[in-house]
Amino acid sequence: MHSYAAPLRDMRFVLKELAGLEQIARLPGYADASPGIVDAVLEEAARFASQVLAPLNASGDRAGARWADGQVHMPPGFREAYRQFVDNGWASLSAHPEYGGQGLPLLVAAAVQEMWKSANLSFSLCPMLTTGAADTLALVGSAEQKAQFLPRLVSGEWTGTMNLTEAQAGSDLAAIRTRAEPQTDGSYRLFGQKIFITYGEHDMAANTLHLVLARIPGAPEGVKGISLFLVPKFMPAADGTPGERNDVVCASIEHKLGIHASPTCVMLYGESGRGATGWLLGEANQGLATMFVMMNAARFAVGLEGLALAERASQKAVAYARNRVQGRAVEGSAAPVPILHHPDVRRMLMLMRSQTEAMRSLAYTVAAAQDAATHESDPAERERSAAFVDLLTPVIKGWCTETANEIAGLCMQVHGGAGYIEETGVAQLLRDARITTIYEGTTGIQANDLVGRKVVKDGGAALLGLMHVMQQTCVTLEEHGSDDLAHIAKPLSRAIDALAQAAEYIVNHSGSDVRGVMVGAVPFLRLFGIVAGGWMMARAALVARQYIDANCAFEDDAGFCPAKIITARFYADHVLSTAMGLARTIVNGGDSALELDEARF
Amino acid sequence: MHSYAAPLRDMRFVLKELAGLEQIARLPGYADASPGIVDAVLEEAARFASQVLAPLNASGDRAGARWADGQVHMPPGFREAYRQFVDNGWASLSAHPEYGGQGLPLLVAAAVQEMWKSANLSFSLCPMLTTGAADTLALVGSAEQKAQFLPRLVSGEWTGTMNLTEAQAGSDLAAIRTRAEPQTDGSYRLFGQKIFITYGEHDMAANTLHLVLARIPGAPEGVKGISLFLVPKFMPAADGTPGERNDVVCASIEHKLGIHASPTCVMLYGESGRGATGWLLGEANQGLATMFVMMNAARFAVGLEGLALAERASQKAVAYARNRVQGRAVEGSAAPVPILHHPDVRRMLMLMRSQTEAMRSLAYTVAAAQDAATHESDPAERERSAAFVDLLTPVIKGWCTETANEIAGLCMQVHGGAGYIEETGVAQLLRDARITTIYEGTTGIQANDLVGRKVVKDGGAALLGLMHVMQQTCVTLEEHGSDDLAHIAKPLSRAIDALAQAAEYIVNHSGSDVRGVMVGAVPFLRLFGIVAGGWMMARAALVARQYIDANCAFEDDAGFCPAKIITARFYADHVLSTAMGLARTIVNGGDSALELDEARF
Repeated sequence: MHSYAAPLRDMRFVLKELAGLEQIARLPGYADASPGIVDAVLEEAARFASQVLAPLNASGDRAGARWADGQVHMPPGFREAYRQFVDNGWASLSAHPEYGGQGLPLLVAAAVQEMWKSANLSFSLCPMLTTGAADTLALVGSAEQKAQFLPRLVSGEWTGTMNLTEAQAGSDLAAIRTRAEPQTDGSYRLFGQKIFITYGEHDMAANTLHLVLARIPGAPEGVKGISLFLVPKFMPAADGTPGERNDVVCASIEHKLGIHASPTCVMLYGESGRGATGWLLGEANQGLATMFVMMNAARFAVGLEGLALAERASQKAVAYARNRVQGRAVEGSAAPVPILHHPDVRRMLMLMRSQTEAMRSLAYTVAAAQDAATHESDPAERERSAAFVDLLTPVIKGWCTETANEIAGLCMQVHGGAGYIEETGVAQLLRDARITTIYEGTTGIQANDLVGRKVVKDGGAALLGLMHVMQQTCVTLEEHGSDDLAHIAKPLSRAIDALAQAAEYIVNHSGSDVRGVMVGAVPFLRLFGIVAGGWMMARAALVARQYIDANCAFEDDAGFCPAKIITARFYADHVLSTAMGLARTIVNGGDSALELDEARF
Repeated sequence: MHSYAAPLRDMRFVLKELAGLEQIARLPGYADASPGIVDAVLEEAARFASQVLAPLNASGDRAGARWADGQVHMPPGFREAYRQFVDNGWASLSAHPEYGGQGLPLLVAAAVQEMWKSANLSFSLCPMLTTGAADTLALVGSAEQKAQFLPRLVSGEWTGTMNLTEAQAGSDLAAIRTRAEPQTDGSYRLFGQKIFITYGEHDMAANTLHLVLARIPGAPEGVKGISLFLVPKFMPAADGTPGERNDVVCASIEHKLGIHASPTCVMLYGESGRGATGWLLGEANQGLATMFVMMNAARFAVGLEGLALAERASQKAVAYARNRVQGRAVEGSAAPVPILHHPDVRRMLMLMRSQTEAMRSLAYTVAAAQDAATHESDPAERERSAAFVDLLTPVIKGWCTETANEIAGLCMQVHGGAGYIEETGVAQLLRDARITTIYEGTTGIQANDLVGRKVVKDGGAALLGLMHVMQQTCVTLEEHGSDDLAHIAKPLSRAIDALAQAAEYIVNHSGSDVRGVMVGAVPFLRLFGIVAGGWMMARAALVARQYIDANCAFEDDAGFCPAKIITARFYADHVLSTAMGLARTIVNGGDSALELDEARF
C-alpha cells in the first residue's frame, strides 16, 4: 500500500512565498522561527509522520479503539507512538515558553499538523484536543490553575478534551442540561451526560483534563447560563501526580463510519451520586464565549484535516494511476498505458492537485494571520489580521472539508473497483473524511456563521475589502502581459464579480428575507472558498512567473514553477467556472427552496 | 430506525404522465399490463419491499456474506427472503411467457426494481444478475440451451452471474486470459481466475449458471478473440436437477466498503486441473458483443440503483428532519423547531427530492423506450426508440449514480453527528451508494461511451434531435403564460443552450484534439444528465399545471400538483444553474488538464 510522504517543497513554497513566513518570523516573540529551525522542524515532522504515524493508520482503522468496563484500549502501537510524540516535544510546538512550549508560530504548527493529519487522522485528534484545552486554560484559567495544569497539558503528559454537547442538544448548546453544584470549598460537583467526546477516555496518557460545559443552579436560561468547568479524570495528588479517580466515567464508545482509532465517548459525570469534582474556568455563565474561542481554533484545525486528507488522497491516486496499466490511449497506442495517461484520470488528478494546493495556500495564509493577530506590535495590524481570520475561519472549515470529501471520492474513482475493497486504504480515507464536514459544526453551521456574523453584521465591509485585494491581484496578472497569467486573470475576475453579486444580494436582503438569504448560505460559503482558493492559485502563479522571468528555479527544481502556472490555469478552467452558477443559485434560489409546505415532505 | 415505503403515488405519476404507460400497454405483447394489473403489481411489490427486504438491509450489512471452505453463507434471513421472492413470482416479472415469464413491460419492471434496490441493494443484485443471464441466454442461446436452462433462470430457481474481468484486466476486457479448451463432445474446459464476481457463490439457490468470458486457443488477440461460455456450478443431471459439482470454486470474497451482504467473489475455473465444463454461448469470438448487450441492461439497472438509493436517502432525511427538534428559527422562534424548518436543511431536502424525481422521470422514460424498441410494430419507431435508449443509457448510469452519492452525502449532512454513527443506517446508504459509480463501468467509462459512441459517432445528430424536443418543451412552457412555468422555461432553455455549445465543441474538435475533448467527457455526461433531468421536471410541471388549470387533483391529492411545480422551480434554480459552468469547463478545460508532464505528478 502507498504510504505518506510530506509534500515538503510545496509546503515551503506556500510558507515562504504566499503566507509570508519571513515576516511572521520577524514578529516579537518568534525569534526562534529562523529559516534553519523551521526547515529542521519540518524535516523531522515529515519523518515522524511517515515513519511512526502513517504505518499505524490502516491497522488502527482495522483494530479500532476498544471499550471494556469503562476503559478504552487504543489499537496496537498507539500508546508507544504517543509516548514518542511527547518525548520528541511535538505536543508543545506552538505553546508559550512560559508553560514549557517552544513558542513557534501557528503558521509553522499548521504545516506540522497537516502532516500528522495526513499520516493518521485518528491519532492527530488527541494532541489537537489537548492543544485546544491548553489554549483555553491559558486564556481564562486562574494563575493557580495554569501553574497546576498547564505544563502537563503543554508537554502532552496529560491530555485534554472538550465536553460540549448532549443527546438532546446536538449543535444547539443552549439546550444542555449538565449541572454543576457549588461546594463550600469553591469547587463544583458535576452531574450529567455528554456525548461525542473525542478521546474522552483512552490509555495513552496518565491523566485527562475534561473541559465541560454545565449550568450552575439558578443560572439564566439558554446560552447565557452556561459555564465552563475543568474536571480531571484523576484528582491531582499533593505532588501533582494523578491521585484518586474522579466521578467521571466513559459509558460507551460509538461505532462510527470512520476514524475508528479515535474513541468517541459517552461520558457520565456524577453517575455514582457523589458528583464529579471540577473547578470553574473563567467567569460563571461565560462558558460559551470561552468555548467559542477554542472552537474557532478547532474549526481551523478541522479545515486543516480536510487539506491533509486531500493531500493523502492525491498522493495515493497518483501512485495508483502511475502504476496501473490498463486500456489503450484514446489517441491510439500500441500497448496499454498507465491510466495516468487517460484524459479523465488526468482531469481527476488535476482536480485533486489543484484544489489541494489552493486549500493549503489559503489555510497557511490564515494561520499566518492568526500569528499576526496576536504578535504584531501595531494594534491596527492586529485588528486587521484578526478580522481576516474571523472572516475566513468558517470558509477554511467548510470549504476545505467539503472539498476533501470530493477529493476522497475522486481518489476512489481513480482506483475503480480496487478502491472499493477495504485493503487498498482508499475506503478509509473516504470514511475518515466524512466526519470533517460534521464535527466542530456542520457545513451549514459554518455557513450560517459566515453569512450572519461575518458578512451581514458589518454590511459586507470586511469581505468587500478582501475582494478589492483579490481584484488587485487580477490587475497585476493582466499587467504582466503573459498569456498564461491573463488566462487565469479573466476567470478569476469573473468569479470575484460573482462573489460580489452574491454578497450584495445577501447584505441587501438579509433584513427583508432572512430565510431566503440563508437558503444560499452553504452555496455562498462554497463560492467564497472557491474564489479565495482561486486568488491563492493566482498569487502562486504570479510568484512562479517571477521566478521564471528571473531565470530562477524554486529550490533548484526547474519544473516546479511552470507546474504551478499550469495548475493555476486548470483551477481557473475547472473550478472557478462554477462560480457564476453558485451566485445565480444564491440570488434566485430562496423562494423555491422554502415554498413547499412542511407537511408535504 | 426509519424504514422504507415505496413512493407509489410519485411512481404512478411518472409511469402514467411522463413515461406513457398507457401507450406501452397498447403495444403488441403487453396486453397484460392493464392499469389494474400494474397497480396490483406495484402495491404487492411495495409490500414485499418494505415488509420482507427492507428489514434485512441493516442486519445484512452487519452480518455480511461469510466465506468458509469455498462456500458462501448469506446473512440470516436472506435464504428465506429469496425463497419467498421466487415463490411469489418476482423473478419472472418481465421475462418472456415462452420461458415462464410474466411478460410485463420493462417500464413496470423498472418501478418494481427500484423498490427492491431501495429496500435492500445487496439482495437485489442477485435477481438482477439472474435476469441479465436469462436475457443473454434468450438472445444467443441455442434452442437446446434455452430449453434446458431458461425456465430455471426465469423462475429464479437457479441464479446467474457475469464473469467478465480478471486481476490484470480491470475495465480493459481485451486483456483477459481465461482459456476455454474445446472437447470432442462439443463442450469446453475452462481454466482461469475471475474477480469481482457478484453472487459468484451463495446458498440461496440450488444451482448457479456462470456466464464466462474466455479465449479459445488460437483465437485472435484482443477483443476479437473473446467468447462467451455457460458454466454451471453443478452439472445438470439427466432429470435436469443439479448433479455433479463442476470444477469451479469460489476462492474468497472481498472485504468491501459497502454492499456487505452481496458476496463479491474470486472464482477459480479448472483449479483441480480437470477444467470447468462449459458450453459456448452464441458464436465463437463474439462474446464481447453479446456481453455488451447484457452490460447495457446492467448499466441501466445500476442507474436505477442510484435512483433507488437516492429515494431511500431522501425518505430517511425527511423523517429525521421532521422529528429532530434543534435550534431556534433564523427568523426568530420562541422554542426550538424541527430542523426541517431551517433554510439550509430545506435546501438539502429539496436537492434530494428534486433530483430524485428528475432521475425517476428520466429512468422510467428510458425504460419505456426500451419497451418501444422491442415491441413497437413500426420498425422506424423501434429504431428511434433504440437510438434514444442508446444515447441515454450511459447518462442514466453515470448521472444517477453520481447524483445518488451526492444525495447520500446530503442525507448524512442532514443527520449531522448521528449520521456518522453506524446505528442510524445513514452510513450504510453512503457506503452502498459508493459502488454504483464504479461497477458496470466507472463514470469515466460511461462518459467515454457517451462522447465517443453516442455523440461524436453520428456527428451529434441523435443529441441534436433530442435537444430540439427539449426546446419545444420550453416553448410550450412559455406559451402557457403562467409565471411559474416561465420561471422554469428560462433556466432550462439556457441550460439546453449550454449543452448544445458543449456538444458542438465536442463534435467539432474530436478529430483534431481527441484528448482535450475527452477531458470534458465526465463534465459533459453530468451536464447532459442535469439538462435531461430538468427537461423531465419541466414536463412534470406542465402536466401538473394542466391538472390545476382543469381544477383536477392527481389521485385526489390536492397538494400533489402544486408541489411538482415548486420542485421543478427549485431544480431550475439550484441544479440547472450549474449548466453554463460545466459547458465552459468542457470548452476551455482540455489544455490545462493535459499540459503537466506526467513525471511531475
